[in-house]
Amino acid sequence: MDWTGKHVLVTGGGGFIGSHLVDRLAARGARITVIDNFSTGFREYVPERGALRVVEGDLLDPHCLQSAIQGADFVFHLAANADIKENLKTPRRCVEQNVIATQNVLEAMRSAGVHDIAFASSGSVYGEASVLPTPEDAPFPVQTSLYATSKIAAEGLLTSYALGFNLRTWIFRFVSVLGPRYTHGHVIDFWRKLKADPTRLEVLGNGKQKKSYLHVADCVAAMLTAIDRSRDAISVLNLGHGDWIEVNQSIAIITRAMGVSPRISYTGGDRGWVGDAPRILLDTRRIQALGWAPTKTIEESILETLRFLNENPYVEQRT
Amino acid sequence: MDWTGKHVLVTGGGGFIGSHLVDRLAARGARITVIDNFSTGFREYVPERGALRVVEGDLLDPHCLQSAIQGADFVFHLAANADIKENLKTPRRCVEQNVIATQNVLEAMRSAGVHDIAFASSGSVYGEASVLPTPEDAPFPVQTSLYATSKIAAEGLLTSYALGFNLRTWIFRFVSVLGPRYTHGHVIDFWRKLKADPTRLEVLGNGKQKKSYLHVADCVAAMLTAIDRSRDAISVLNLGHGDWIEVNQSIAIITRAMGVSPRISYTGGDRGWVGDAPRILLDTRRIQALGWAPTKTIEESILETLRFLNENPYVEQRT
Repeated sequence: MDWTGKHVLVTGGGGFIGSHLVDRLAARGARITVIDNFSTGFREYVPERGALRVVEGDLLDPHCLQSAIQGADFVFHLAANADIKENLKTPRRCVEQNVIATQNVLEAMRSAGVHDIAFASSGSVYGEASVLPTPEDAPFPVQTSLYATSKIAAEGLLTSYALGFNLRTWIFRFVSVLGPRYTHGHVIDFWRKLKADPTRLEVLGNGKQKKSYLHVADCVAAMLTAIDRSRDAISVLNLGHGDWIEVNQSIAIITRAMGVSPRISYTGGDRGWVGDAPRILLDTRRIQALGWAPTKTIEESILETLRFLNENPYVEQRT
Repeated sequence: MDWTGKHVLVTGGGGFIGSHLVDRLAARGARITVIDNFSTGFREYVPERGALRVVEGDLLDPHCLQSAIQGADFVFHLAANADIKENLKTPRRCVEQNVIATQNVLEAMRSAGVHDIAFASSGSVYGEASVLPTPEDAPFPVQTSLYATSKIAAEGLLTSYALGFNLRTWIFRFVSVLGPRYTHGHVIDFWRKLKADPTRLEVLGNGKQKKSYLHVADCVAAMLTAIDRSRDAISVLNLGHGDWIEVNQSIAIITRAMGVSPRISYTGGDRGWVGDAPRILLDTRRIQALGWAPTKTIEESILETLRFLNENPYVEQRT
């Protein structure tokens, strides 16, 4: 796709993945509107520049959304409540911010006559996958978390609207993403705990959870590759890394990089929290067939994440 | 399960399937509260009697729900917006009435300390199934309708809450149901058209859509069998008939029963409406393994439905 002069709306553009996407689109000549409530995004991630307009607002406010979408040619819908572990404490918020907000985006697109939308879903929609690596057409999973439920509901809204109202949609099911501007997940949790007390580290579960991680630059490149090369009305694509690592391996990388040797204790059980899938590895043959492959190892991604956290103390202070 | 003296809340208890369930539970000695907004249900279906309390109210009104659920031991959540064909005209209503309403029921259960919930989902969650008969763990489908999206979202809420808050849930994915008190679907549509003009019949699609149908008495028996015999935290069960018929076969049964010989015209295409799945046949080995089997043929179900419509003109007048 030639993005030159295209007007792109990025919801959640002030967030971790969204802001990298904004940079990449800007480099390819797009004009960009970011809408973000900055509840988890950072103004620092999207400094104002010529081709970029930033609207501070919430997707649950339809008026704000309607004004942000005017003139858009393409929507990337990345805004979400991604606080998987905390969702059981505020179950309605997850549905509002991920399901209702997605329907608001789709309704705004219908009103404004915008036809193309890419969406950040999640590999968590496979629940406790019975097939590893997990392909897009894995056996129909039982949803184990409100977060994954809200993502699968949003996916269904996108595909139903695509068929019913002639939209085109790209749905990306991510593994966890790492790299600069990362703000939540196990790397920041461990890093923060070890800075506070380098002598000990408490780990949720038994440390044997094994998951795949993708670098944010690879993630954004994959999305843009898919949009360039797949023009179907509905594209559903896993985005992940062929490799995966145990929590214990991740801890070894983090402690070595930080130069600490903590005593490690485990809360026990085979998962980190209720609804956690202890093993995540996605089959990425579909996106690879479009000509994309990851360029960074998981270890490189972890180390870059730590470097970013060390160099940008405001992230720790404000998350 | 011994239902004697149990207090059961049935949402949508004034509807087609709900009212049959109420009758069956009452016969087994349960005390029942029905909550129904009677937008598609009928007061005639749930005449007041000793063991039955009827609350006219909407699940989007949490106060009404909270008062209805007091003292309940078990919830059957059958209330839904089931108007599949019309959902694209009012896309928000489907999400409100099927997703938000389901979350309201779950939150009311949490407040009231109720732990068991059975739910009427739908075989439409399989989209255009690539495997027929379709098992519960069929390849992960792309959702093709807002209705099915809302059902899969509701299923995910149920399973997430079950894991997160120690509930137990039975999820039933129905084929289309027929029999007494039926109020919408192709049988009433054709019957109504043929009463108005017995010389012609317009059919949506090409008449070759082929689907399975279940008698409402068999459907209710299956639900109660599953609750008796499956005590897992999460049970997901297809409910359907081993047989299926083409729309054209159904038309032959209906026209013969009505004694009419219309000229049949087709709107064309291989499906009735956007999002329609032209072939629906569910694999029901899971529920059959629990000791249930359908007792009525599809033809018997159609004929009973027609008899009911002929004998109860108020249904036609008020739908």
